Amino acid sequence: MENVFDLSKEGASKIYVKGTMPGVSVGMKKVSLGNKNDILLYDTTGPYTEEKYQINVHKGLPHIKKTWAEERIAKYGSNKTQLWFARQGIITPEMEYVAIRENQGNNDPETMITPEMVRDEIAAGRAILPSNMKHPEAEPMIIGNKFLVKINANIGNSALGSSIEEEVEKALWAIKWGADTVMDLSTGKDIHKTREAILRNTPVPIGTVPMYQALEKVNGRVEDLTWEVYYDTLVEQCEQGVDYFTIHAGILQEHVPAALKRVTGIVSRGGSIMAKWMSINKKENFLYTHFEEICELLKRYDVAFSLGDGLRPGCIADANDEAQFGELKVLGELAEISWKHDVQVIIEGPGHVPMHMIRENMEKQIEWCHGAPFYTLGPLVSDIGAGYDHITSAIGGAMIGWMGTSMLCYVTTKEHLALPNKEDVREGVVTFKLAAHAADLAKGHPGAANRDLEMSKARYDMRWNDQFNLSFDPERARRMHFEMIGSGADHCSMCGPHFCAMKITKSI
Amino acid sequence: MENVFDLSKEGASKIYVKGTMPGVSVGMKKVSLGNKNDILLYDTTGPYTEEKYQINVHKGLPHIKKTWAEERIAKYGSNKTQLWFARQGIITPEMEYVAIRENQGNNDPETMITPEMVRDEIAAGRAILPSNMKHPEAEPMIIGNKFLVKINANIGNSALGSSIEEEVEKALWAIKWGADTVMDLSTGKDIHKTREAILRNTPVPIGTVPMYQALEKVNGRVEDLTWEVYYDTLVEQCEQGVDYFTIHAGILQEHVPAALKRVTGIVSRGGSIMAKWMSINKKENFLYTHFEEICELLKRYDVAFSLGDGLRPGCIADANDEAQFGELKVLGELAEISWKHDVQVIIEGPGHVPMHMIRENMEKQIEWCHGAPFYTLGPLVSDIGAGYDHITSAIGGAMIGWMGTSMLCYVTTKEHLALPNKEDVREGVVTFKLAAHAADLAKGHPGAANRDLEMSKARYDMRWNDQFNLSFDPERARRMHFEMIGSGADHCSMCGPHFCAMKITKSI
Repeated sequence: MENVFDLSKEGASKIYVKGTMPGVSVGMKKVSLGNKNDILLYDTTGPYTEEKYQINVHKGLPHIKKTWAEERIAKYGSNKTQLWFARQGIITPEMEYVAIRENQGNNDPETMITPEMVRDEIAAGRAILPSNMKHPEAEPMIIGNKFLVKINANIGNSALGSSIEEEVEKALWAIKWGADTVMDLSTGKDIHKTREAILRNTPVPIGTVPMYQALEKVNGRVEDLTWEVYYDTLVEQCEQGVDYFTIHAGILQEHVPAALKRVTGIVSRGGSIMAKWMSINKKENFLYTHFEEICELLKRYDVAFSLGDGLRPGCIADANDEAQFGELKVLGELAEISWKHDVQVIIEGPGHVPMHMIRENMEKQIEWCHGAPFYTLGPLVSDIGAGYDHITSAIGGAMIGWMGTSMLCYVTTKEHLALPNKEDVREGVVTFKLAAHAADLAKGHPGAANRDLEMSKARYDMRWNDQFNLSFDPERARRMHFEMIGSGADHCSMCGPHFCAMKITKSI
Repeated sequence: MENVFDLSKEGASKIYVKGTMPGVSVGMKKVSLGNKNDILLYDTTGPYTEEKYQINVHKGLPHIKKTWAEERIAKYGSNKTQLWFARQGIITPEMEYVAIRENQGNNDPETMITPEMVRDEIAAGRAILPSNMKHPEAEPMIIGNKFLVKINANIGNSALGSSIEEEVEKALWAIKWGADTVMDLSTGKDIHKTREAILRNTPVPIGTVPMYQALEKVNGRVEDLTWEVYYDTLVEQCEQGVDYFTIHAGILQEHVPAALKRVTGIVSRGGSIMAKWMSINKKENFLYTHFEEICELLKRYDVAFSLGDGLRPGCIADANDEAQFGELKVLGELAEISWKHDVQVIIEGPGHVPMHMIRENMEKQIEWCHGAPFYTLGPLVSDIGAGYDHITSAIGGAMIGWMGTSMLCYVTTKEHLALPNKEDVREGVVTFKLAAHAADLAKGHPGAANRDLEMSKARYDMRWNDQFNLSFDPERARRMHFEMIGSGADHCSMCGPHFCAMKITKSI
């Protein structure tokens, strides 16, 4: 596999910031700037960006969290989640790790994020630290609205395409550009093997929708789906190391009639499957009726719930409707049950929502789900963006991130049209990194604004390499600039040498 | 020149909707949908999309407005602007034209836009109808917050590149994708000839920054710049048919010290030129001191002011600062002077502004500029988007459009890096059409939501061609889809045939 992780091209190097607890050593990207300032940037690439790191997909990544988990089990017994520790007032190594990581070098005692704050946010249910003990390759990260807005990249084969190797490559490609978590949404053949390869080689938490595999096990026949098949699938994926599960336990029989009256019905695959199952069996959603059993299982591994919004609106006309909000209320009830079992939980959200209706989504989610982190797909602020839906969704994503959403699921340019290829993944990830970063700036995350400030200083000083290296896609910025102009210019090619406003300003 | 305007590939045709006044015939794009509904879409392409229209750049476009202007002068005398007529209670053919155009087929008497409403908004200064009598090729359009949010595409050569032919091609390319106005920002050679070719061949209003040509006339030496050279340039451009001028009359001597203390100083070319001129000459901005003379000139042609924000912030750290808001107040005073002379006026705005500081821009602009339309460049919600600044700016643009901005200047993916090529123009225009459309949806423009609704119905019915044809870039949507999957599929390639949520929903 080609090594795409060479930082030297970006004027950067990988450094590790040590914590106070054993084994806490947080990888960051250090960019050396022409004005003698260095800047530390949040880095999702794990050991891949270490100098001379040899990629070996058969061997997998080092187990950075293994000792921590083992020591904890020895001392406190099994069945203990990050939420349990937080509630006991205990700071885990993972918590110290994410505090250091979030600060990105900010060490102002007034504003810096502390391990205590991380612990308290987790204890309150306002943040999660996904950490399946069976996934020791994943670096700790935190999802919560006091922290940097995170982004998820979906990958996964469908019946129509792509091999295991390609999916691992896509996962690594996604983290190269900054994906904070990766969801493997494979629905075709080799689901287990694809997931195994991704888990062993990806340094970020991995999410799945277990229903997809459960349905494959009954050959795609919803009528043959049972709680037992589903539960076995959960166990299988817990054992493999999946860090969070999308589970559509909030869509109930009572919601279905309203959903069927919509312009675009049910657009969540998991939601439509459960709706069909309920209508065939005339029974309540088995994910809802067996919810406490699922809690018991997830607790044993510290797998987090991502409570799926099976009734998210699929178009502007269906936004904020009875079906959507009916389900959201149930998700809030399930969050409380989850917390009762010390299981970490986030709530999934829409979807397609026009700008003026976004705030209501956030306010109701905070109220009804008691502050559990919100994880949204966009929202897309229009339905007509075919070919450009990374943009319609980045607009909504940035806004809802500012308002309090903790993680954004990326949407690619091919949304509604086709599966994304590698370049689409790159563009989708970078687009969402920007949306998330814009939200971080707007909500005043203490580690966010420094990067913009250094970029602006570099711009005023015409330090071109620094400008490229401070962007989320140095390669693209560099290529665009140099396609038109040679290196070392003291002007950009937009205005030419005689019309540069900043040069004129300096001459005053 | 290659004809890029063939609508038949988009399942569409050009139709004309007649008004009640002589010669009012409004071109629209009619898309025929598979559910037997037709939809009329706003169309910026002028006669180019007429079947069998022969492009001839030497001959230029037909003069659709010539008779109207001549009849008016015969009846009311010269020196009469659309604002003057509106204030007299007179509905011009241009006003009826834009009312029909804005409705896009909506004929609900409760919500449809009427010529009276157009007239009243213009009379109140809350909208402008750019219409230099010397530019009879341009189709009437309106800029104001009660109407569809418009977008402008900048083109223009710099000292570093591109020919006249290329610039005309770019202008036509921009209107093909939906640019509502085009600004010719050429700074290199052949400014006059380039502009002439653009004016005679573009069916949308053309804007310029006359300072660029004035400065060329004194060989780029700010110290040699005089009011006389500038005024001659204005006359020259009025005579050619430019519809609106960016004039940096609001930046005063008192503002400069604050601007020089900023992280990125002055980032407007016009602003930096005037600041330098004031500092060399120790005199007040001659555009400010001669403002009434400019009004007298512009009135004779009905050229509109676009009062330039020479002190717009060039980075997040400089947003909403003393320099920016100091100038904005002056722009408000100038708007009132402009109205005194019956000259139409819009106000330019930022720039780089984080999301949480956008609303203050809009509120102050409405208050201080007495409701004159706002025309913003983005704003970009972060500084670090190099290579992706169409996205950082679309986020801010959509938001400020929703809040009341009337026109958005597009930003391309090459912003801060290089001049855009044709594909960059296309991506920039479509991105901003989406941002503007999202704003239209959020502010409840009565003609906006129908397109989303038809798109969503087409999506639920798996009518693929209708989905492509309802998007802003049918060609791209179609290509992305068919690259992966054959035609006629009853599923998309994202989920494959067995996992389509909408198919499952229909089976319930």
